[in-house]
Amino acid sequence: MNERLILLTNDDGYNAKGLQAAIEVARPFGRVVAIAPETTQSGMSQAITMYRPLFLKKQHEEEGLAIYSFSGTPVDCVKMAFDHLLREERIDLVLSGINHGSNSAVNVLYSGTMGAAIEGSFYGCPSIGLSLTDHAPDADFDAAVGYGRRIVERVLRGGIGLPCCLNVNIPVGRPETLKGIRICRQNRGFWREEFFRREDPHGRPYFWLTGDFVNAEPEAEDTDEWALDHGYVSVVPVQVDLTDYGQKKRLEGLFE
Amino acid sequence: MNERLILLTNDDGYNAKGLQAAIEVARPFGRVVAIAPETTQSGMSQAITMYRPLFLKKQHEEEGLAIYSFSGTPVDCVKMAFDHLLREERIDLVLSGINHGSNSAVNVLYSGTMGAAIEGSFYGCPSIGLSLTDHAPDADFDAAVGYGRRIVERVLRGGIGLPCCLNVNIPVGRPETLKGIRICRQNRGFWREEFFRREDPHGRPYFWLTGDFVNAEPEAEDTDEWALDHGYVSVVPVQVDLTDYGQKKRLEGLFE
Repeated sequence: MNERLILLTNDDGYNAKGLQAAIEVARPFGRVVAIAPETTQSGMSQAITMYRPLFLKKQHEEEGLAIYSFSGTPVDCVKMAFDHLLREERIDLVLSGINHGSNSAVNVLYSGTMGAAIEGSFYGCPSIGLSLTDHAPDADFDAAVGYGRRIVERVLRGGIGLPCCLNVNIPVGRPETLKGIRICRQNRGFWREEFFRREDPHGRPYFWLTGDFVNAEPEAEDTDEWALDHGYVSVVPVQVDLTDYGQKKRLEGLFE
Repeated sequence: MNERLILLTNDDGYNAKGLQAAIEVARPFGRVVAIAPETTQSGMSQAITMYRPLFLKKQHEEEGLAIYSFSGTPVDCVKMAFDHLLREERIDLVLSGINHGSNSAVNVLYSGTMGAAIEGSFYGCPSIGLSLTDHAPDADFDAAVGYGRRIVERVLRGGIGLPCCLNVNIPVGRPETLKGIRICRQNRGFWREEFFRREDPHGRPYFWLTGDFVNAEPEAEDTDEWALDHGYVSVVPVQVDLTDYGQKKRLEGLFE
Protein backbone atom coordinates (compact mmCIF):
# COMPACT_ATOMS: atom_id res chain seq x y z
CA MET A 1 0.00 0.00 0.00
CA ASN A 2 1.20 3.44 -0.93
CA GLU A 3 0.18 5.34 2.17
CA ARG A 4 0.73 9.07 2.17
CA LEU A 5 2.86 10.79 4.81
CA ILE A 6 1.86 14.25 5.98
CA LEU A 7 4.10 16.43 8.11
CA LEU A 8 2.39 18.85 10.46
CA THR A 9 3.88 21.77 12.28
CA ASN A 10 2.74 25.14 13.62
CA ASP A 11 3.96 28.18 15.54
CA ASP A 12 1.57 27.99 18.48
CA GLY A 13 3.21 24.91 20.02
CA TYR A 14 2.55 21.17 20.01
CA ASN A 15 -0.32 21.43 22.49
CA ALA A 16 -2.29 24.20 20.72
CA LYS A 17 -5.90 23.53 19.80
CA GLY A 18 -5.01 24.50 16.22
CA LEU A 19 -2.62 21.54 15.93
CA GLN A 20 -5.45 19.18 16.89
CA ALA A 21 -7.52 20.84 14.17
CA ALA A 22 -4.68 20.31 11.66
CA ILE A 23 -4.59 16.63 12.66
CA GLU A 24 -8.31 16.45 11.88
CA VAL A 25 -7.59 17.98 8.48
CA ALA A 26 -4.75 15.61 7.66
CA ARG A 27 -5.73 12.19 9.03
CA PRO A 28 -8.16 11.21 6.30
CA PHE A 29 -5.29 11.53 3.79
CA GLY A 30 -2.62 9.32 5.36
CA ARG A 31 -0.17 8.85 8.18
CA VAL A 32 0.52 11.99 10.17
CA VAL A 33 3.71 13.04 11.92
CA ALA A 34 3.60 16.35 13.79
CA ILE A 35 6.79 18.09 14.89
CA ALA A 36 5.82 21.33 16.54
CA PRO A 37 7.58 23.84 18.78
CA GLU A 38 7.76 23.18 22.50
CA THR A 39 6.60 26.74 23.20
CA THR A 40 4.71 29.42 21.30
CA GLN A 41 6.70 30.79 18.36
CA SER A 42 4.28 33.34 16.94
CA GLY A 43 5.99 36.06 14.93
CA MET A 44 9.11 33.93 14.43
CA SER A 45 9.05 34.31 10.65
CA GLN A 46 11.64 32.18 8.83
CA ALA A 47 13.94 32.18 11.88
CA ILE A 48 16.37 29.30 12.45
CA THR A 49 18.27 28.41 15.62
CA MET A 50 21.99 28.58 15.04
CA TYR A 51 23.62 29.06 18.43
CA ARG A 52 22.05 26.58 20.78
CA PRO A 53 21.28 22.85 20.82
CA LEU A 54 17.73 21.66 20.27
CA PHE A 55 15.81 18.90 22.02
CA LEU A 56 13.27 16.58 20.41
CA LYS A 57 10.65 14.77 22.50
CA LYS A 58 7.97 12.30 21.50
CA GLN A 59 4.76 13.50 23.14
CA HIS A 60 2.21 11.09 21.76
CA GLU A 61 1.94 8.05 19.52
CA GLU A 62 -0.95 6.00 18.21
CA GLU A 63 -1.76 4.14 15.00
CA GLY A 64 -1.16 6.56 12.11
CA LEU A 65 -0.20 9.54 14.30
CA ALA A 66 2.93 10.66 16.14
CA ILE A 67 3.40 14.03 17.83
CA TYR A 68 6.81 15.42 18.74
CA SER A 69 7.83 18.65 20.40
CA PHE A 70 11.04 20.34 19.32
CA SER A 71 12.69 23.16 21.25
CA GLY A 72 13.33 25.38 18.20
CA THR A 73 11.43 27.53 15.75
CA PRO A 74 8.79 26.35 13.24
CA VAL A 75 11.45 26.30 10.49
CA ASP A 76 13.71 24.21 12.74
CA CYS A 77 10.82 21.72 13.06
CA VAL A 78 10.55 21.36 9.29
CA LYS A 79 14.31 20.93 8.92
CA MET A 80 14.30 18.32 11.72
CA ALA A 81 11.65 16.36 9.82
CA PHE A 82 13.28 16.44 6.39
CA ASP A 83 16.92 16.28 7.44
CA HIS A 84 16.70 13.84 10.32
CA LEU A 85 13.53 12.23 11.67
CA LEU A 86 11.82 11.42 8.35
CA ARG A 87 14.93 11.52 6.23
CA GLU A 88 14.42 8.01 4.83
CA GLU A 89 10.78 8.60 3.92
CA ARG A 90 8.95 10.58 1.31
CA ILE A 91 6.87 13.40 2.77
CA ASP A 92 3.86 14.11 0.54
CA LEU A 93 2.66 17.32 2.13
CA VAL A 94 3.64 19.87 4.76
CA LEU A 95 0.71 21.39 6.61
CA SER A 96 1.48 24.25 8.98
CA GLY A 97 -1.16 25.45 11.42
CA ILE A 98 -3.96 25.81 11.95
CA ASN A 99 -2.75 29.15 13.22
CA HIS A 100 -4.65 31.08 15.88
CA GLY A 101 -4.77 34.42 14.03
CA SER A 102 -4.60 35.75 10.48
CA ASN A 103 -1.50 35.51 8.30
CA SER A 104 -2.85 37.51 5.39
CA ALA A 105 -1.14 40.47 3.71
CA VAL A 106 2.33 41.39 5.00
CA ASN A 107 1.86 39.07 7.97
CA VAL A 108 3.14 36.32 5.70
CA LEU A 109 6.60 37.76 6.39
CA TYR A 110 6.36 37.76 10.19
CA SER A 111 4.47 34.51 10.54
CA GLY A 112 6.12 31.41 11.96
CA THR A 113 3.30 29.36 10.44
CA MET A 114 4.14 30.64 6.98
CA GLY A 115 7.89 30.46 7.67
CA ALA A 116 7.45 26.72 8.16
CA ALA A 117 5.27 26.34 5.08
CA ILE A 118 7.79 28.21 2.93
CA GLU A 119 10.56 26.02 4.33
CA GLY A 120 8.60 22.91 3.34
CA SER A 121 8.42 24.13 -0.24
CA PHE A 122 12.24 24.50 -0.26
CA TYR A 123 12.38 20.71 0.04
CA GLY A 124 10.27 20.41 -3.12
CA CYS A 125 7.24 19.33 -1.10
CA PRO A 126 3.78 20.87 -1.57
CA SER A 127 3.21 23.02 1.51
CA ILE A 128 0.19 24.75 2.95
CA GLY A 129 -0.07 27.26 5.77
CA LEU A 130 -3.55 27.33 7.30
CA SER A 131 -4.66 30.18 9.54
CA LEU A 132 -7.93 31.12 11.19
CA THR A 133 -8.55 34.82 11.74
CA ASP A 134 -9.28 34.29 15.44
CA HIS A 135 -6.62 34.48 18.16
CA ALA A 136 -8.75 32.89 20.88
CA PRO A 137 -7.28 29.70 22.39
CA ASP A 138 -10.79 28.13 22.20
CA ALA A 139 -11.55 29.38 18.65
CA ASP A 140 -14.09 27.44 16.55
CA PHE A 141 -12.05 25.54 13.95
CA ASP A 142 -14.93 23.73 12.22
CA ALA A 143 -14.93 25.84 9.06
CA ALA A 144 -11.13 25.83 8.94
CA VAL A 145 -11.05 22.04 9.14
CA GLY A 146 -13.64 21.68 6.38
CA TYR A 147 -11.96 24.10 4.00
CA GLY A 148 -8.55 22.77 4.98
CA ARG A 149 -9.59 19.29 3.85
CA ARG A 150 -10.90 20.57 0.52
CA ILE A 151 -7.65 22.36 -0.19
CA VAL A 152 -5.41 19.49 0.95
CA GLU A 153 -7.43 17.10 -1.22
CA ARG A 154 -6.98 19.38 -4.23
CA VAL A 155 -3.24 19.78 -3.67
CA LEU A 156 -2.65 16.03 -3.21
CA ARG A 157 -4.65 15.29 -6.34
CA GLY A 158 -2.04 17.33 -8.21
CA GLY A 159 -2.18 19.74 -11.07
CA ILE A 160 -0.93 22.64 -9.02
CA GLY A 161 2.73 22.37 -9.95
CA LEU A 162 5.84 22.59 -7.82
CA PRO A 163 7.14 24.42 -5.92
CA CYS A 164 3.76 24.91 -4.32
CA CYS A 165 3.27 26.92 -1.17
CA LEU A 166 -0.19 28.21 -0.34
CA ASN A 167 -1.05 30.83 2.27
CA VAL A 168 -4.61 29.96 3.25
CA ASN A 169 -6.63 32.13 5.64
CA ILE A 170 -10.09 31.30 6.89
CA PRO A 171 -12.40 33.96 8.29
CA VAL A 172 -14.37 33.49 11.48
CA GLY A 173 -17.75 31.89 10.92
CA ARG A 174 -19.66 28.65 10.85
CA PRO A 175 -18.93 26.55 7.74
CA GLU A 176 -22.34 27.29 6.19
CA THR A 177 -21.88 31.08 6.45
CA LEU A 178 -18.59 31.22 4.50
CA LYS A 179 -18.83 32.06 0.81
CA GLY A 180 -16.16 29.80 -0.68
CA ILE A 181 -12.54 30.04 -1.81
CA ARG A 182 -10.87 32.92 -3.63
CA ILE A 183 -7.41 32.83 -5.19
CA CYS A 184 -5.82 36.15 -4.20
CA ARG A 185 -2.73 38.25 -4.20
CA GLN A 186 -1.04 39.52 -1.05
CA ASN A 187 -2.60 42.77 0.14
CA ARG A 188 -0.36 45.81 0.47
CA GLY A 189 -1.03 46.85 4.02
CA PHE A 190 1.13 47.72 6.98
CA TRP A 191 1.15 47.77 10.75
CA ARG A 192 0.70 51.00 12.64
CA GLU A 193 2.48 50.24 15.82
CA GLU A 194 3.39 51.60 19.16
CA PHE A 195 5.31 50.35 22.13
CA PHE A 196 3.28 50.12 25.27
CA ARG A 197 5.65 51.40 28.00
CA ARG A 198 5.48 50.41 31.67
CA GLU A 199 7.84 49.98 34.58
CA ASP A 200 8.77 46.66 36.14
CA PRO A 201 8.75 46.11 39.95
CA HIS A 202 12.35 47.35 40.05
CA GLY A 203 11.49 50.61 38.31
CA ARG A 204 13.08 49.64 34.99
CA PRO A 205 11.06 50.75 31.96
CA TYR A 206 10.06 48.02 29.56
CA PHE A 207 8.39 48.03 26.16
CA TRP A 208 5.80 45.75 24.68
CA LEU A 209 4.90 45.77 21.01
CA THR A 210 1.31 46.49 20.05
CA GLY A 211 -0.36 47.71 16.88
CA ASP A 212 -3.15 47.67 14.33
CA PHE A 213 -3.10 46.48 10.77
CA VAL A 214 -3.97 49.07 8.14
CA ASN A 215 -5.31 47.85 4.80
CA ALA A 216 -3.72 50.25 2.31
CA GLU A 217 -6.00 49.18 -0.54
CA PRO A 218 -9.42 48.27 0.92
CA GLU A 219 -11.14 48.53 -2.49
CA ALA A 220 -8.87 46.06 -4.30
CA GLU A 221 -11.03 42.98 -4.76
CA ASP A 222 -8.18 40.67 -5.74
CA THR A 223 -6.39 40.77 -2.36
CA ASP A 224 -6.52 38.35 0.55
CA GLU A 225 -7.73 41.08 2.92
CA TRP A 226 -10.71 41.83 0.71
CA ALA A 227 -11.62 38.15 0.50
CA LEU A 228 -11.47 37.73 4.29
CA ASP A 229 -13.41 40.95 4.92
CA HIS A 230 -16.13 39.64 2.62
CA GLY A 231 -16.49 36.15 4.07
CA TYR A 232 -14.28 34.20 1.65
CA VAL A 233 -11.41 31.84 2.36
CA SER A 234 -8.28 33.41 0.82
CA VAL A 235 -5.61 31.36 -0.96
CA VAL A 236 -2.39 33.15 -1.99
CA PRO A 237 0.25 31.12 -3.85
CA VAL A 238 3.63 32.10 -2.42
CA GLN A 239 7.07 32.33 -4.03
CA VAL A 240 10.33 33.48 -2.50
CA ASP A 241 12.33 35.36 -5.09
CA LEU A 242 12.40 38.79 -3.44
CA THR A 243 14.22 40.44 -6.34
CA ASP A 244 12.49 43.65 -7.40
CA TYR A 245 12.96 43.19 -11.16
CA GLY A 246 11.51 46.57 -12.07
CA GLN A 247 13.92 48.33 -9.78
CA LYS A 248 16.80 46.10 -10.88
CA LYS A 249 16.42 47.49 -14.37
CA ARG A 250 16.36 51.07 -13.13
CA LEU A 251 19.44 50.52 -10.94
CA GLU A 252 21.62 49.16 -13.71
CA GLY A 253 23.77 52.04 -14.80
CA LEU A 254 23.31 54.00 -11.56
CA PHE A 255 26.27 52.33 -9.88
CA GLU A 256 28.97 52.63 -12.50
CA MET B 1 21.02 73.05 9.04
CA ASN B 2 19.33 70.08 7.52
CA GLU B 3 21.43 67.31 9.03
CA ARG B 4 20.67 63.78 7.97
CA LEU B 5 19.71 61.11 10.49
CA ILE B 6 20.84 57.54 9.85
CA LEU B 7 19.53 54.59 11.82
CA LEU B 8 21.85 51.64 12.23
CA THR B 9 21.03 48.16 13.37
CA ASN B 10 22.34 44.63 12.86
CA ASP B 11 21.80 41.05 13.92
CA ASP B 12 25.20 40.38 15.48
CA GLY B 13 24.60 42.59 18.51
CA TYR B 14 25.49 46.15 19.53
CA ASN B 15 29.09 45.27 20.33
CA ALA B 16 29.91 43.44 17.07
CA LYS B 17 32.85 44.66 15.02
CA GLY B 18 30.49 44.93 12.05
CA LEU B 19 28.45 47.63 13.84
CA GLN B 20 31.60 49.71 14.26
CA ALA B 21 32.20 49.26 10.54
CA ALA B 22 28.64 50.42 9.81
CA ILE B 23 29.26 53.49 11.96
CA GLU B 24 32.33 54.23 9.83
CA VAL B 25 30.15 53.92 6.73
CA ALA B 26 27.41 56.20 8.04
CA ARG B 27 29.13 59.00 9.98
CA PRO B 28 30.28 61.06 7.01
CA PHE B 29 26.61 61.41 6.00
CA GLY B 30 25.02 62.71 9.18
CA ARG B 31 23.98 61.99 12.72
CA VAL B 32 23.97 58.30 13.60
CA VAL B 33 21.71 56.46 16.03
CA ALA B 34 22.34 52.73 16.41
CA ILE B 35 19.75 50.47 18.05
CA ALA B 36 21.06 46.95 17.92
CA PRO B 37 20.20 43.68 19.66
CA GLU B 38 21.64 43.00 23.09
CA THR B 39 22.71 39.53 21.97
CA THR B 40 23.43 37.84 18.66
CA GLN B 41 20.29 37.41 16.53
CA SER B 42 21.69 35.70 13.45
CA GLY B 43 19.08 33.74 11.52
CA MET B 44 16.22 35.66 13.14
CA SER B 45 14.69 36.61 9.80
CA GLN B 46 11.75 39.04 10.09
CA ALA B 47 10.91 37.80 13.62
CA ILE B 48 9.19 40.10 16.10
CA THR B 49 8.84 39.69 19.86
CA MET B 50 5.22 39.44 20.86
CA TYR B 51 5.11 37.69 24.23
CA ARG B 52 7.71 39.30 26.41
CA PRO B 53 8.71 42.83 27.41
CA LEU B 54 11.80 44.41 25.89
CA PHE B 55 14.47 46.54 27.52
CA LEU B 56 16.30 49.46 25.93
CA LYS B 57 19.68 50.64 27.23
CA LYS B 58 21.89 53.51 26.11
CA GLN B 59 25.38 52.06 25.75
CA HIS B 60 27.32 54.99 24.37
CA GLU B 61 26.87 58.64 23.41
CA GLU B 62 29.11 61.22 21.82
CA GLU B 63 28.67 64.14 19.42
CA GLY B 64 26.73 62.82 16.41
CA LEU B 65 26.51 59.22 17.61
CA ALA B 66 24.37 57.28 20.07
CA ILE B 67 24.37 53.50 20.53
CA TYR B 68 21.54 51.63 22.23
CA SER B 69 21.06 47.95 22.93
CA PHE B 70 17.56 46.50 22.77
CA SER B 71 16.66 43.07 24.10
CA GLY B 72 14.64 42.01 21.04
CA THR B 73 15.17 40.99 17.44
CA PRO B 74 16.61 43.17 14.63
CA VAL B 75 13.06 43.97 13.45
CA ASP B 76 12.10 44.96 17.00
CA CYS B 77 15.06 47.39 16.94
CA VAL B 78 13.76 49.06 13.78
CA LYS B 79 10.25 49.31 15.19
CA MET B 80 11.60 50.76 18.44
CA ALA B 81 13.38 53.48 16.43
CA PHE B 82 10.47 54.47 14.18
CA ASP B 83 7.63 53.97 16.65
CA HIS B 84 9.21 55.26 19.83
CA LEU B 85 12.76 56.54 20.19
CA LEU B 86 13.01 58.58 16.97
CA ARG B 87 9.30 58.99 16.45
CA GLU B 88 9.45 62.79 16.25
CA GLU B 89 12.33 62.84 13.79
CA ARG B 90 12.76 62.04 10.14
CA ILE B 91 15.03 59.07 9.53
CA ASP B 92 16.78 59.40 6.17
CA LEU B 93 18.27 55.94 5.89
CA VAL B 94 18.27 52.57 7.62
CA LEU B 95 21.57 50.74 7.43
CA SER B 96 21.64 47.18 8.75
CA GLY B 97 24.93 45.40 9.30
CA ILE B 98 27.68 45.12 8.46
CA ASN B 99 26.84 41.46 8.87
CA HIS B 100 29.50 38.89 9.64
CA GLY B 101 28.58 36.41 6.87
CA SER B 102 26.86 36.39 3.49
CA ASN B 103 23.16 37.15 3.02
CA SER B 104 23.02 36.39 -0.67
CA ALA B 105 20.53 34.06 -2.39
CA VAL B 106 17.86 32.49 -0.18
CA ASN B 107 19.70 33.67 2.92
CA VAL B 108 17.81 36.93 2.51
CA LEU B 109 14.85 35.06 4.03
CA TYR B 110 16.66 33.76 7.12
CA SER B 111 18.77 36.81 7.75
CA GLY B 112 18.09 39.08 10.69
CA THR B 113 20.18 41.75 8.96
CA MET B 114 17.88 41.70 5.96
CA GLY B 115 14.78 41.34 8.15
CA ALA B 116 15.69 44.69 9.69
CA ALA B 117 16.42 46.30 6.31
CA ILE B 118 13.09 45.09 4.92
CA GLU B 119 11.33 46.43 8.00
CA GLY B 120 12.93 49.84 7.44
CA SER B 121 11.52 49.94 3.93
CA PHE B 122 8.02 49.31 5.37
CA TYR B 123 8.32 52.73 6.99
CA GLY B 124 8.95 54.27 3.57
CA CYS B 125 12.62 54.83 4.37
CA PRO B 126 15.43 53.82 2.02
CA SER B 127 17.06 50.79 3.61
CA ILE B 128 20.26 48.91 2.97
CA GLY B 129 21.46 45.60 4.35
CA LEU B 130 25.25 45.28 4.17
CA SER B 131 26.96 41.93 4.61
CA LEU B 132 30.53 40.73 4.31
CA THR B 133 31.03 37.13 3.23
CA ASP B 134 33.25 36.38 6.21
CA HIS B 135 31.96 35.08 9.55
CA ALA B 136 35.15 35.76 11.50
CA PRO B 137 34.70 38.12 14.49
CA ASP B 138 37.91 39.92 13.41
CA ALA B 139 37.03 40.05 9.68
CA ASP B 140 38.63 42.77 7.53
CA PHE B 141 35.85 45.30 6.85
CA ASP B 142 37.89 47.82 4.82
CA ALA B 143 36.40 46.94 1.43
CA ALA B 144 32.91 46.70 2.92
CA VAL B 145 33.24 50.17 4.43
CA GLY B 146 34.46 51.65 1.16
CA TYR B 147 31.75 50.10 -0.98
CA GLY B 148 29.16 50.73 1.72
CA ARG B 149 29.92 54.46 1.55
CA ARG B 150 29.63 54.51 -2.23
CA ILE B 151 26.25 52.84 -2.09
CA VAL B 152 24.93 54.97 0.79
CA GLU B 153 26.04 58.10 -1.04
CA ARG B 154 24.19 56.96 -4.18
CA VAL B 155 21.01 56.11 -2.28
CA LEU B 156 20.97 59.40 -0.36
CA ARG B 157 21.55 61.34 -3.56
CA GLY B 158 18.23 59.87 -4.76
CA GLY B 159 16.95 58.64 -8.05
CA ILE B 160 16.46 55.12 -6.82
CA GLY B 161 12.77 55.39 -5.99
CA LEU B 162 10.82 54.22 -2.97
CA PRO B 163 10.29 51.74 -1.48
CA CYS B 164 13.98 50.99 -1.70
CA CYS B 165 15.59 48.07 0.03
CA LEU B 166 18.96 46.85 -1.15
CA ASN B 167 20.62 43.58 -0.23
CA VAL B 168 24.33 44.31 -0.58
CA ASN B 169 26.96 41.61 -0.15
CA ILE B 170 30.69 42.22 -0.26
CA PRO B 171 33.15 39.42 -0.97
CA VAL B 172 36.28 38.90 1.06
CA GLY B 173 39.27 40.84 -0.25
CA ARG B 174 41.22 44.04 0.01
CA PRO B 175 39.46 47.03 -1.58
CA GLU B 176 41.82 47.13 -4.55
CA THR B 177 41.22 43.48 -5.45
CA LEU B 178 37.42 43.76 -5.78
CA LYS B 179 36.04 44.29 -9.27
CA GLY B 180 33.17 46.70 -8.64
CA ILE B 181 29.41 46.61 -8.15
CA ARG B 182 26.92 44.41 -10.00
CA ILE B 183 23.13 44.77 -9.83
CA CYS B 184 21.84 41.21 -9.50
CA ARG B 185 18.86 39.01 -8.95
CA GLN B 186 18.56 36.60 -6.02
CA ASN B 187 20.21 33.28 -6.80
CA ARG B 188 18.08 30.13 -6.66
CA GLY B 189 20.05 27.99 -4.31
CA PHE B 190 19.27 25.99 -1.21
CA TRP B 191 20.81 24.63 1.94
CA ARG B 192 21.76 20.98 2.21
CA GLU B 193 21.53 20.46 5.91
CA GLU B 194 21.98 17.96 8.62
CA PHE B 195 21.58 17.92 12.34
CA PHE B 196 24.74 17.20 14.22
CA ARG B 197 23.63 14.88 17.05
CA ARG B 198 25.38 14.53 20.41
CA GLU B 199 24.50 13.75 24.01
CA ASP B 200 24.56 16.22 26.86
CA PRO B 201 26.21 15.44 30.24
CA HIS B 202 22.89 13.95 31.39
CA GLY B 203 22.70 11.57 28.44
CA ARG B 204 19.95 13.51 26.64
CA PRO B 205 20.43 13.67 22.87
CA TYR B 206 20.55 17.15 21.38
CA PHE B 207 20.65 18.46 17.83
CA TRP B 208 22.56 21.30 16.31
CA LEU B 209 21.85 22.64 12.83
CA THR B 210 24.65 22.59 10.27
CA GLY B 211 24.74 22.68 6.49
CA ASP B 212 26.21 23.81 3.21
CA PHE B 213 24.77 26.16 0.64
CA VAL B 214 24.26 24.71 -2.83
CA ASN B 215 24.19 27.11 -5.77
CA ALA B 216 21.53 25.60 -8.05
CA GLU B 217 22.48 27.77 -11.01
CA PRO B 218 26.25 28.37 -10.90
CA GLU B 219 26.38 29.43 -14.56
CA ALA B 220 23.77 32.21 -14.27
CA GLU B 221 25.79 35.42 -14.50
CA ASP B 222 22.99 37.69 -13.33
CA THR B 223 22.76 36.29 -9.79
CA ASP B 224 24.27 37.55 -6.55
CA GLU B 225 26.13 34.27 -6.01
CA TRP B 226 27.85 34.57 -9.37
CA ALA B 227 28.88 38.15 -8.64
CA LEU B 228 30.36 37.22 -5.26
CA ASP B 229 32.12 34.15 -6.64
CA HIS B 230 33.73 36.37 -9.26
CA GLY B 231 34.93 39.15 -6.96
CA TYR B 232 32.09 41.66 -7.40
CA VAL B 233 29.96 43.40 -4.81
CA SER B 234 26.36 42.21 -5.34
CA VAL B 235 23.36 44.54 -5.03
CA VAL B 236 19.89 42.98 -5.17
CA PRO B 237 16.88 45.31 -4.94
CA VAL B 238 14.33 43.65 -2.66
CA GLN B 239 10.52 43.72 -2.66
CA VAL B 240 8.12 41.85 -0.41
CA ASP B 241 5.08 40.84 -2.42
CA LEU B 242 5.43 37.05 -2.19
CA THR B 243 2.45 36.37 -4.45
CA ASP B 244 3.33 33.87 -7.18
CA TYR B 245 1.38 35.57 -9.98
CA GLY B 246 2.05 32.83 -12.53
CA GLN B 247 0.68 30.20 -10.21
CA LYS B 248 -2.22 32.44 -9.16
CA LYS B 249 -3.42 32.40 -12.74
CA ARG B 250 -3.15 28.61 -12.94
CA LEU B 251 -4.98 28.13 -9.64
CA GLU B 252 -7.99 30.18 -10.59
CA GLY B 253 -10.60 27.69 -11.61
CA LEU B 254 -8.98 24.79 -9.76
CA PHE B 255 -10.84 25.53 -6.53
CA GLU B 256 -14.40 25.91 -7.75
